[in-house]
Amino acid sequence: MSEALRIGMDIGGSKTAAVALDLSGAVVASTQLLTERGPDGVLDTAEHAIRELARLTARSAREFASVGIGIPGQIDRELGVVRNAYNIDVARLALAELLSESTGLTVTLDNDVTAAAIGAAHLMGLSGTVAYLNLGTGLSAGFVVDGAPLRGSHGVAGEIGHLAVDRLERPCPCGQRGCLETVASGSALKTYWPAGGDHPGRILLSAIAAGDAEARTAFEYLVRGAANCVRLLVLALDPHTVVIGGGLRLLGDPLLDGIRTTLDEWSAASPFLTELQLGERVQVLPEDSSAAAVGAALAGIS
Amino acid sequence: MSEALRIGMDIGGSKTAAVALDLSGAVVASTQLLTERGPDGVLDTAEHAIRELARLTARSAREFASVGIGIPGQIDRELGVVRNAYNIDVARLALAELLSESTGLTVTLDNDVTAAAIGAAHLMGLSGTVAYLNLGTGLSAGFVVDGAPLRGSHGVAGEIGHLAVDRLERPCPCGQRGCLETVASGSALKTYWPAGGDHPGRILLSAIAAGDAEARTAFEYLVRGAANCVRLLVLALDPHTVVIGGGLRLLGDPLLDGIRTTLDEWSAASPFLTELQLGERVQVLPEDSSAAAVGAALAGIS
Ligand SMILES: [Zn+2]
Ligand SMILES: [Zn+2]
Repeated sequence: MSEALRIGMDIGGSKTAAVALDLSGAVVASTQLLTERGPDGVLDTAEHAIRELARLTARSAREFASVGIGIPGQIDRELGVVRNAYNIDVARLALAELLSESTGLTVTLDNDVTAAAIGAAHLMGLSGTVAYLNLGTGLSAGFVVDGAPLRGSHGVAGEIGHLAVDRLERPCPCGQRGCLETVASGSALKTYWPAGGDHPGRILLSAIAAGDAEARTAFEYLVRGAANCVRLLVLALDPHTVVIGGGLRLLGDPLLDGIRTTLDEWSAASPFLTELQLGERVQVLPEDSSAAAVGAALAGIS
Repeated sequence: MSEALRIGMDIGGSKTAAVALDLSGAVVASTQLLTERGPDGVLDTAEHAIRELARLTARSAREFASVGIGIPGQIDRELGVVRNAYNIDVARLALAELLSESTGLTVTLDNDVTAAAIGAAHLMGLSGTVAYLNLGTGLSAGFVVDGAPLRGSHGVAGEIGHLAVDRLERPCPCGQRGCLETVASGSALKTYWPAGGDHPGRILLSAIAAGDAEARTAFEYLVRGAANCVRLLVLALDPHTVVIGGGLRLLGDPLLDGIRTTLDEWSAASPFLTELQLGERVQVLPEDSSAAAVGAALAGIS
């Protein structure tokens, strides 16, 4: 009998990452594949990932202990249903039931950002209250308190991207104006700095270095918006650590330095903020972390 | 041997409320007295309240099972120390130790708003995720998830009053501009509507009824700021219920109606907000509730 392994999966708009964890929570195998879109495509992708992990760990797929899946959209954990996951072309999919039928495994779903928060806390060895700030295509947060995720009453905790508090008051697809997501997200970059193409984050820093004034402005808005989120998360929940994750974390040190400098400027004017030591709470998720997949595996059995 | 009773106490700037709870969490005795200020005064007040509850329940003070105290300021629960509680003239007081020495009882301290959140959830029979919005002299929030308080890593969770997001950008004593507390709090009313005197909330509605335009504006700012807080709390933590507490809750239906109307206006422009059903989540703490004292008693043994 081989050791019990839990599968975790992060089904994203373009790629799906999957890991197998041993009982200690260590990653013993991992794989990555392109996400096929639409309900059938997503189910195929998940089955494919499980078969690949079975091959990598030299066992049959039925021997895995559980499957946890982090996925965007609205998640009904009880029913195992995902809704409105538009970036993978899914309006509604009973993913847990269908995948369980085809594999014989126990399957649970989680919001991808909540899964990433769980995984980041685990991988980075963070205890107490942890806030995870996802600077991805969208902007949202996830929370872990003493190892357990906070999901809220309808599973929508952490939707801070649609707090309409930014002074630029840009229109947001949600119908409000000035949502934080309209300045601090990949979709904001794409909308307001079209020169960056489909993946503006990847060329933002080089464009700034080349003297692109609009790229610099876009970056400044991004930094101010992210700093606003950090202040918000600290004042609301007093996390010991705010982890910056999502695709835009690949902006790396310039992003982290920018956020800390902004927080320092605000704190210089406010003894109250100074005492909160905002900048010191911020960390960036390491570049090669499969936080959401790992977190989904951990959440799969909780 | 009489039944074990837990004492809870809410030491406020002017009054101290104290209750005795039986094991089921029901209030079997309560008292209220004026708070004496300063370290010695606060200790005297707490001792006095315990003696009075002993008299009311026909037992000696030493027979109580525990004492939980909700108090403003920065609380170190581990040490049982309260700091910077300026509205009771206390810079630092080892209240738990001193009161324990003089009474022989186990004493624990809690932030008054956290205690009120615990008490409100208990008294109003609310389960799941509960946010308590304290519209008092200051503005802050407390959270209870499945019966347990969220205190954060340094006990400062819920300090949303100093989120600098209000568009009036009024200066705040904390050093920032536009803090929510500069519009939605008793201190904001006192500063920006001086005609209301020391307790502006008490005469605000009658002043509006008498045609005072400045009172109306102050009320509108208060309502908009409170609605902003509700949206913020729902997007951040997805509570099933947001309970409006604090002295300004005595503005009653006009306040609740105003908050709901504002949330409805914002939602009319945003399908995203509409789906969150913000207005339906808001409730007001009943007028005669000793939420903080009850919550402090409950937290005293957890
Ligand atoms: Zn929005
Ligand atoms: Zn302030």
